[in-house]
Amino acid sequence: MSGASQEGVTAKKGENFDEWYTQVILKSEIADYSPVSGCVVYRPFGYAIWENIQKETDAMFKEAGITNTYFPIFIPERLLRKEAEHVEGFAPEVAWVTQTGNTKIEERLAVRPTSESLMYDVVSRWIRSWRDLPLRLNQWNNVVRWETKNPIFILRSREFLWNEGHSLFSTREEADAERDQILGIYRRITEDYLAIPGYVGKKTKAETFAGAEGTYSIEHLLPDGKAIQGPDWHSDGQNFSRAFGIVFIDRDGNKQFAFQNTWAISTREIGVMLAVHSDDRGAVVPPKLAAVQVVVVPIVNDESKGAVLAEANKLMLSLRRFRSRLDDRDNLTPGRKFNEWELKGVPLRVEFGPRDMKEGQAVLVRRDTGGKRTAKLASLADEVAKELEAIQSSLFQKASAALATNTRDATTLDELKMILSQKGGMIRIHWCGDVTCEAKMREFAGGKILNVPLDQKPSKGRCLVCGRDSPSIAIYGKSY
Amino acid sequence: MSGASQEGVTAKKGENFDEWYTQVILKSEIADYSPVSGCVVYRPFGYAIWENIQKETDAMFKEAGITNTYFPIFIPERLLRKEAEHVEGFAPEVAWVTQTGNTKIEERLAVRPTSESLMYDVVSRWIRSWRDLPLRLNQWNNVVRWETKNPIFILRSREFLWNEGHSLFSTREEADAERDQILGIYRRITEDYLAIPGYVGKKTKAETFAGAEGTYSIEHLLPDGKAIQGPDWHSDGQNFSRAFGIVFIDRDGNKQFAFQNTWAISTREIGVMLAVHSDDRGAVVPPKLAAVQVVVVPIVNDESKGAVLAEANKLMLSLRRFRSRLDDRDNLTPGRKFNEWELKGVPLRVEFGPRDMKEGQAVLVRRDTGGKRTAKLASLADEVAKELEAIQSSLFQKASAALATNTRDATTLDELKMILSQKGGMIRIHWCGDVTCEAKMREFAGGKILNVPLDQKPSKGRCLVCGRDSPSIAIYGKSY
Repeated sequence: MSGASQEGVTAKKGENFDEWYTQVILKSEIADYSPVSGCVVYRPFGYAIWENIQKETDAMFKEAGITNTYFPIFIPERLLRKEAEHVEGFAPEVAWVTQTGNTKIEERLAVRPTSESLMYDVVSRWIRSWRDLPLRLNQWNNVVRWETKNPIFILRSREFLWNEGHSLFSTREEADAERDQILGIYRRITEDYLAIPGYVGKKTKAETFAGAEGTYSIEHLLPDGKAIQGPDWHSDGQNFSRAFGIVFIDRDGNKQFAFQNTWAISTREIGVMLAVHSDDRGAVVPPKLAAVQVVVVPIVNDESKGAVLAEANKLMLSLRRFRSRLDDRDNLTPGRKFNEWELKGVPLRVEFGPRDMKEGQAVLVRRDTGGKRTAKLASLADEVAKELEAIQSSLFQKASAALATNTRDATTLDELKMILSQKGGMIRIHWCGDVTCEAKMREFAGGKILNVPLDQKPSKGRCLVCGRDSPSIAIYGKSY
Repeated sequence: MSGASQEGVTAKKGENFDEWYTQVILKSEIADYSPVSGCVVYRPFGYAIWENIQKETDAMFKEAGITNTYFPIFIPERLLRKEAEHVEGFAPEVAWVTQTGNTKIEERLAVRPTSESLMYDVVSRWIRSWRDLPLRLNQWNNVVRWETKNPIFILRSREFLWNEGHSLFSTREEADAERDQILGIYRRITEDYLAIPGYVGKKTKAETFAGAEGTYSIEHLLPDGKAIQGPDWHSDGQNFSRAFGIVFIDRDGNKQFAFQNTWAISTREIGVMLAVHSDDRGAVVPPKLAAVQVVVVPIVNDESKGAVLAEANKLMLSLRRFRSRLDDRDNLTPGRKFNEWELKGVPLRVEFGPRDMKEGQAVLVRRDTGGKRTAKLASLADEVAKELEAIQSSLFQKASAALATNTRDATTLDELKMILSQKGGMIRIHWCGDVTCEAKMREFAGGKILNVPLDQKPSKGRCLVCGRDSPSIAIYGKSY
């Protein structure tokens, strides 16, 4: 908690999104630049968000029967090369260790961009029969993908933190049945905790994970009109089990290759969440994830100081079930404190002065709306809980309304191009499913098909490009 | 949970410690080898131990006001070179990234062996005045030290997981006062959770961390008679703050360099813990850290199967407050199940058969002692809790007794050498504090001074080497 003068955010979200986004993250002290370009330093206010995401997601994984592991960060080059599409997808982005101490090593080691190749080489030794399956493993770790494009603070960083889930099943049916469970967990985390909505659907072949048969994603919308891919789940079929020899004896005594899936949620979500909710006064963080949920700011003069602070300390005891903090610094005015905590995105401020003390009340101020009301001290904790819930659900409603408003229909290529260039956002289109039509759209209008939502009613239409029958809607947009 | 045949541990702890240790870890499915030599794969039963260590330690850190952060894994070479002793200590063990994709990068990047140089470069921008201090940061991450000596499974691995705490204070007094708090936390974790004792004391100058002014450690004893360094705390004084320009304005308006400390506990402790407690039947894991604390094994025949399993499932409900598991596999005999869970180190087994059902009881079997007793089903959870507590404290008592038995006194160099070569263990010696005497001991007897315990009564004696007055005892031993 710095006593130093802090400048507020000077850029406007509606005018210069990129500059505003960077300022919010730096000035809120959520994250900082690293000496290595494209890597992120998560400061206490930012890392707490990730800890909370991790804690909640991990509890859901464990409830689903998934267990955690740790696999080493280094992958020998020969293993990375075992699955052809996989290495082709990742090799251009790999950071290679070639020396240890002063010695050149014989085989280059990849700093993991993802762990399939290392894990599956090891896991192949653990599996003998159908009784060893399903095997559902997860790890929370750091991975490195040396993007050649410009990295973007938190949204596309060269090192990021994530979960990587890897599961193995004895039948395709069981493997496929995992999809809705994992996507359901990610949906709960993004909607109920991060308070950001998205389209949950299947990516096209062109956008499928390197080595997978099918990729499903949650696609979010940023306030600048561009989409960004959130958590995902990949169906790998038997691609990797064939490459890495993951064989089991099935119930009939036959040798079979295992069916595999992988899935991930990353620190990128923190950037999406901040971009969606924050405003021109700084960060806005949903209460369920905020490092500090409630800050109490006593308002004192020399005369009232002793009594108000004593009472404020008592009041803190009743707020112990929240992540709460008392700001009793004596070198800053209340106004300066208000600004600082607003900049940092603390969801609720409790103001407490001599008059409040006399009235047995406190003033609650919402970060998201600025809404103020008084609450009796006797029921303060319950009132705080109510406000935090209200903020949490209001943030999601607001973001959902923004997504709905910024999702438009296009029925021709010209319309698609016009909406994309003039308004951005998500665009609902009919698409026949053909890759050449997909390629034509990209070429003509820019952007890409983000996914084909799972949760849609049958809606007959005609492909935007070729006019053939299309049974379903795809979501189109420019993407980060 | 594998249905495949599992071979038990064939080596004996008392005969071939190294082979026994490796077998216990591999066969218990706690960890596995990695394709990269010296890196460790933590399987679910092993990673759960680390998760539990992390959770408990982290709660104590947070209680002490320490907050978590994340700093990137890559350190530019120029930063690593900023503190002379530090780089000299670590450079021979650094894994260097020199290429990304197909491109040679301009400046080599160190995969962090520890994060001082990167963190302090960044943190220097966060601090302006004494009001910004203390700043007490921690991170849980992976680090890489490419040991040139042979790595030892878990005990000395080339990548390991740890906490690295880094704190900054405005006065030396405050910085020094942190020592007992952090060592106290590590002591609680090692004694009350890992159930392993150790000597807490100050390392000699020769054994001080590269760049630090003073290093304090907990020194454990392994059953092969060799010592191993556990968690540590380093007082850095102003060494790093001078090198990295971490300057603050003090209360009097003067510029000053911050006083710093660092501290760590690593996955090495898992290896120490397993080596100390495990036996010829496999792993022994203290209940507070075990992945599974209680396993219920129903003992059924075709006739009783339905009723016993139904009752066993009810019984599981009463054990929900523990990490518990029902082993209802139908392809293994109870005896095979007993062996498997013993191999894996589950602290308590509950056997439940038709006769137990009739009597309204179950049989509790301790992993550590093999002790058996019955418990009434009505009070099963309480009886299980009691047994788990008994196991936890008995493991620590046993290990403490072993440390006491294997701590001997030496008053001459010859005696030191003889004890060291014939019995090993920890050796209490008087030492004057002089580095030349320390060097002579090492040269004459092998081994080294492990530390000078903090918690000792004044005991006058004469230095083993020079005969000068020595005010305190040092602990000597061969060390991993």
